[in-house]
Amino acid sequence: MITIRDVARQAGVSVATVSRVLNHSNAVTQETRDAVLQAVESLGYRPNANAQALATQVSDTIGVVVMDVSDPFFGALVKAVDTVAQRLQKHVLISNSWHQEEKERHAIEVLIRQRCSALIVHAKTLSDRELAGFMEQVPGMVLINRIIPGYAHRCVCLDNVSGALMATRMLQQYGHQRIGYLSSSHPIEDVEQRREGWLMALAEQGIVPPEVWVASGEPDMQGGEAAMVELLGRNLHLTAILAYNDGMAVGALTALKDNGILVPQHCSVVGFDDIPASRYTDPQLTTVRYPIVSMAKLATELALKGAAGQLDASAQHCFMPTLVRRHSVAGKQSVEPVTNSTDLPM
Amino acid sequence: MITIRDVARQAGVSVATVSRVLNHSNAVTQETRDAVLQAVESLGYRPNANAQALATQVSDTIGVVVMDVSDPFFGALVKAVDTVAQRLQKHVLISNSWHQEEKERHAIEVLIRQRCSALIVHAKTLSDRELAGFMEQVPGMVLINRIIPGYAHRCVCLDNVSGALMATRMLQQYGHQRIGYLSSSHPIEDVEQRREGWLMALAEQGIVPPEVWVASGEPDMQGGEAAMVELLGRNLHLTAILAYNDGMAVGALTALKDNGILVPQHCSVVGFDDIPASRYTDPQLTTVRYPIVSMAKLATELALKGAAGQLDASAQHCFMPTLVRRHSVAGKQSVEPVTNSTDLPM
Repeated sequence: MITIRDVARQAGVSVATVSRVLNHSNAVTQETRDAVLQAVESLGYRPNANAQALATQVSDTIGVVVMDVSDPFFGALVKAVDTVAQRLQKHVLISNSWHQEEKERHAIEVLIRQRCSALIVHAKTLSDRELAGFMEQVPGMVLINRIIPGYAHRCVCLDNVSGALMATRMLQQYGHQRIGYLSSSHPIEDVEQRREGWLMALAEQGIVPPEVWVASGEPDMQGGEAAMVELLGRNLHLTAILAYNDGMAVGALTALKDNGILVPQHCSVVGFDDIPASRYTDPQLTTVRYPIVSMAKLATELALKGAAGQLDASAQHCFMPTLVRRHSVAGKQSVEPVTNSTDLPM
Repeated sequence: MITIRDVARQAGVSVATVSRVLNHSNAVTQETRDAVLQAVESLGYRPNANAQALATQVSDTIGVVVMDVSDPFFGALVKAVDTVAQRLQKHVLISNSWHQEEKERHAIEVLIRQRCSALIVHAKTLSDRELAGFMEQVPGMVLINRIIPGYAHRCVCLDNVSGALMATRMLQQYGHQRIGYLSSSHPIEDVEQRREGWLMALAEQGIVPPEVWVASGEPDMQGGEAAMVELLGRNLHLTAILAYNDGMAVGALTALKDNGILVPQHCSVVGFDDIPASRYTDPQLTTVRYPIVSMAKLATELALKGAAGQLDASAQHCFMPTLVRRHSVAGKQSVEPVTNSTDLPM
């Protein structure tokens, strides 16, 4: 790695002189400046961001922490942050936390140590207290999909309970009563909140679902497929399924198809998030829209304002989900003719 | 941001003393050490990675540059790098390049300035000469999906031509002759290489496809859907489609379905990459497997060896793609009964 010392040696001047030239100080002769710039050019020396950050204590870098960038939901989040960053000529550095406490803490610390002036963090496993500690240290740190008491103006979140509640009520309006739930096995609050919305809607109809109406898996296509197979094996005569997210819903569609169960004629399926892929399934997936792009853009703007000390401490940033009606939901009556059919393990 | 100066002030000692304590020097009294550590604790001071990197000129951070982490292919690449990094207690910092020269250069420079000791770079728009310059500066920089003359031992690549060639030959073995190509609109060599494999296979059958057999779009589901609609509108009586990647193939399946064209009975479709989602389409997608996970893991190991100066300069790392036969390809004969059908604009 070429250092400022190499440049000084090559130019035959002191490190301080090289530094003065690179910082456009006038206290150097044109001759010296030319010698230094020639050395910089010939050696391909790059000013060290670490040294610059040390000097200024800030960087022009926006840090983003998500569970896993390869998850379509988080990919969309990161892309939205990057869109805002590009408009402002900022760089984005991304780090994964894998919904694991140690890695979540580590990812945040790495970006703080890189002196990111703005941080957008999706943190689910760290305590409110620990996150508050980070936010105290970093005025440009904003949380997405999490609220910390006392820091609401720096938290951008979604009402998960209402999303699951409206999705389940829609299924009920189509006549469904036996509605199963495909849950995520990740121990994060979103999972509990969406499950709570599903329970609330069923309770409104006087239904208390037995535990067996719920199957869990990783919050992706493979996990949804396995969980749906598990539900089918229990032979519960469910007529509709609410999935924790679209990935699991897509996996469920495949499991249902493999078992000769037509969607939506024999079983309705509703996802959550409205990732781009949900428009390309067969049938196209009816889902709950999580406005992650708008939320990530707002979070980025808030983080940059926070880094500049310009935040409105009284603001609130809670988004509401909406229903996206496509073709994976139909009326329960269409189930009747086939509920006795042997090709319907449900 | 809390600095070492704040700690020194609070502990009533010099910055040098704080530094000695943090570096576990013995040249301090227990009393002083306690005072400093208490100040560190109460202020929540974090040693500055920039200062540490400056001192050591390396960091324990692996940098990754990809086109767009929200693309499933690049998501899988990044996840594979992270898997290796986690095993070795390294951090991963990710940056997007968007297949744009300026951003590609910028992403690499940002990570170099962050003193990443190992860099895995997917660079498509920068010249061999410029990339060679970066690789000279950073011994731990490895290219994925690109070969630079003289740096082959630090390049991990795939034979794209052979992949498209074997996919097109398979379609020909099923009796297809009029095989269209859904191309990516990104000006990168992979696009040309895959198109070349398609052309070679057709040439083996004495076919020189007219330009109209090719439609281009963004290399994702939306782009594939639009390009397929464009091909359908040209009424070319194509019986099979090779797509630049799985995303475009998934979009094509949707466009064909929307136009009442059954896959594979009326039209066969083959993708490229074998992203996880290709197993969840209807029908499940027949595709060309791009072993990106193995390639990314190897690239990471090479980058870390390079950073440690332990690379074998004689090694080569070119992978071969393989066919994944699922259910989106069928024999041409099944097309005959419907080629006169009015619901077949092709």
